[in-house]
Amino acid sequence: MSNVIALLTDFGLEDTYVGVMKGVILNIFSDARLVDISHSIRPQNVREGAFALMNSYSYFPEGTTFCVVIDPGVGSTRLPIAVKTDKYQFIAPDNGVLSYALSSINTDYQVVALENLDYQLSQVSNTFHGRDIFSPASAYLARGDVSITSFGQTLDKIFTFPTPQMSFSNNRLIGEVMHIDHFGNIITNIGQFRWMDDEHLKFDALWNSSIPPMTIDAQQANITIHSNTFHGISHAYHEAFRGEILVQIDSNGFLEIGANQEDAASRIDAQIGDKVMLKLVD
Amino acid sequence: MSNVIALLTDFGLEDTYVGVMKGVILNIFSDARLVDISHSIRPQNVREGAFALMNSYSYFPEGTTFCVVIDPGVGSTRLPIAVKTDKYQFIAPDNGVLSYALSSINTDYQVVALENLDYQLSQVSNTFHGRDIFSPASAYLARGDVSITSFGQTLDKIFTFPTPQMSFSNNRLIGEVMHIDHFGNIITNIGQFRWMDDEHLKFDALWNSSIPPMTIDAQQANITIHSNTFHGISHAYHEAFRGEILVQIDSNGFLEIGANQEDAASRIDAQIGDKVMLKLVD
Amino acid sequence: MSNVIALLTDFGLEDTYVGVMKGVILNIFSDARLVDISHSIRPQNVREGAFALMNSYSYFPEGTTFCVVIDPGVGSTRLPIAVKTDKYQFIAPDNGVLSYALSSINTDYQVVALENLDYQLSQVSNTFHGRDIFSPASAYLARGDVSITSFGQTLDKIFTFPTPQMSFSNNRLIGEVMHIDHFGNIITNIGQFRWMDDEHLKFDALWNSSIPPMTIDAQQANITIHSNTFHGISHAYHEAFRGEILVQIDSNGFLEIGANQEDAASRIDAQIGDKVMLKLVD
Repeated sequence: MSNVIALLTDFGLEDTYVGVMKGVILNIFSDARLVDISHSIRPQNVREGAFALMNSYSYFPEGTTFCVVIDPGVGSTRLPIAVKTDKYQFIAPDNGVLSYALSSINTDYQVVALENLDYQLSQVSNTFHGRDIFSPASAYLARGDVSITSFGQTLDKIFTFPTPQMSFSNNRLIGEVMHIDHFGNIITNIGQFRWMDDEHLKFDALWNSSIPPMTIDAQQANITIHSNTFHGISHAYHEAFRGEILVQIDSNGFLEIGANQEDAASRIDAQIGDKVMLKLVD
Repeated sequence: MSNVIALLTDFGLEDTYVGVMKGVILNIFSDARLVDISHSIRPQNVREGAFALMNSYSYFPEGTTFCVVIDPGVGSTRLPIAVKTDKYQFIAPDNGVLSYALSSINTDYQVVALENLDYQLSQVSNTFHGRDIFSPASAYLARGDVSITSFGQTLDKIFTFPTPQMSFSNNRLIGEVMHIDHFGNIITNIGQFRWMDDEHLKFDALWNSSIPPMTIDAQQANITIHSNTFHGISHAYHEAFRGEILVQIDSNGFLEIGANQEDAASRIDAQIGDKVMLKLVD
Repeated sequence: MSNVIALLTDFGLEDTYVGVMKGVILNIFSDARLVDISHSIRPQNVREGAFALMNSYSYFPEGTTFCVVIDPGVGSTRLPIAVKTDKYQFIAPDNGVLSYALSSINTDYQVVALENLDYQLSQVSNTFHGRDIFSPASAYLARGDVSITSFGQTLDKIFTFPTPQMSFSNNRLIGEVMHIDHFGNIITNIGQFRWMDDEHLKFDALWNSSIPPMTIDAQQANITIHSNTFHGISHAYHEAFRGEILVQIDSNGFLEIGANQEDAASRIDAQIGDKVMLKLVD
């Protein structure tokens, strides 16, 4: 077990929502070690939250409890759930926000509904289950003296939404923009890639198992977004001149369009969901 | 006692101000457990800070020390103070920022001025008492080995400002917008409400004791802001179509105007201070 | 030793970068006490990061490890380094980001390159050394059971960039805007000043040792930025009317142009790098 509770929400930091969740957690489990993954998921964007969780959870200590609250259905019938894998524990609404992370875990996991009122605040609002349900559940589960089955009935499956489209035909990998980061780097769902040597990349399709593994010649690849085509996949920002756009592999193995010390997304007006094509050499 | 020190300021997170405060606190009390309530109170908006503190403090563990720095009068004659209630401790400038929270506490409390130079940094600037006075005081008080009377003289009363206007006549409750949150939810000072059953709300005036308690029929209420009138009080966001504006009770019992997965404040151009009217059925 | 690890980056809080760094650190050193100095250094602005570090590090407990990642050269040949002074430890790229802080430390310090792969993640990306190199190094160094020389070869010197220009002639101190804070206060590199009594300031040049120490009459000084000249140096914001611009000494001893409860930088359209002149009395 770990006393780390990692928080991922769309609550922002302007309001007191995140602070209040931490107060609730510490009131139940005073030794909790609270870590913010991010609170800036775009409001109600469950899919962006799922992508963020998938790319971050595995760096946390074994036993970490993840409290994930991107919850457009708060107050409706969607269930709050707890999930226990061999290494981690997750508390979240059952709306798909865990599905990318869980799809990357090969072992079995246990799912229960958060139903037991003993592990919720005495007053449960219709608008802030982060405070009233998810924070208490995270604290009790991380504290380690409440078994997961105490929270409620076991569920056979969780809600999953379709993985982001990635297709392959005519030597073209087609995907889309998943995230634009603080620096203006454009991160796609085309991956995962790994450098084999200075010139070649190994590709293993993360999102579509019908696409075969491939070896790619980095200098022969062309990447197109909107009407812009970029030639070759670089190793690092400094291979481009300052301000020049380049394509590289991001720190999680996805194709990324960035610029050396500039904001690529502004330069080419990229948005989440835009199509991106990677044409391999014939 | 608790080793939790909860911070609420208008310092933002762009600068190093909050980080430096935490360094100062840990230098004095290495076991302090620091929690950010928020640092995004609108600059120098003491009233917004007071509202945020009132809605958050009671979720924290007993014994928590709150370090509240919204301080337009830094460097002037307004006193820095410490307040000890039966459950909590507060460090703040004496400018009213504690007054809403303290008005919700029914027991006696003790107030002292922060005068003893032994519990301040050796150099006190005129612009950053958060670092020089409030952080050290929070650390010494939370550490528990310095009695509150060691900080300075006992004060008979603290500065309080008028509570936000809420009036009642002709079956109309009139209040104002107190806060607009990260999601664009418009939170008013009309409250507090609590659902009695699916159709009825219990109202107990928080801000004006001359308004009698009432039972309200949720479907018969009309809410007006600017030239927009909305009918009925909903239970949760999902009762509206996506993008539709609805009125509900926020997680602290106040009337809130929101939208299902959209930004209500932008849609109707609401600002803090705008008048809101709740017309009850005749 | 202290278990405090203080983080200063330009990663922002919108993404999961900072959260992932914390996960990596806690995975290695579960008792680390993580403190955010700021993550809002302007992207790739090494000089702003250096200024922020210089103004904040000395408030942290002795033994604190600073993990400083403003790193436009990530993936290039610039070295990652560890620096140990008599009181603190620093982990950073060797790009000058430590140079202002180290220039204010009079004792010797030790510098090593971070080369030992045992103290890096097993996969090192080309874009996120904050996660792969700097976080692990901070965790191992703060944990205290890995000596600094285990990380790699000792370096004779670190990269330093020129200190910000400050010149003195004809009774005029000329400097520039270094930072604009959350409140719109305009902070210059003209300093450091310290009040001697109500009317006089002691000046000791921080950035240019050829400028002699001086005593300055606060009421006789004129400060010019763009075409605006302000008369006299005030003690605190409240000495000006609300909204009025005033010049004072910031909490780190630098000349600051601010406004009482307003945003001075917006009012006079100040930008980082703008020239500022302080004319002393003849």
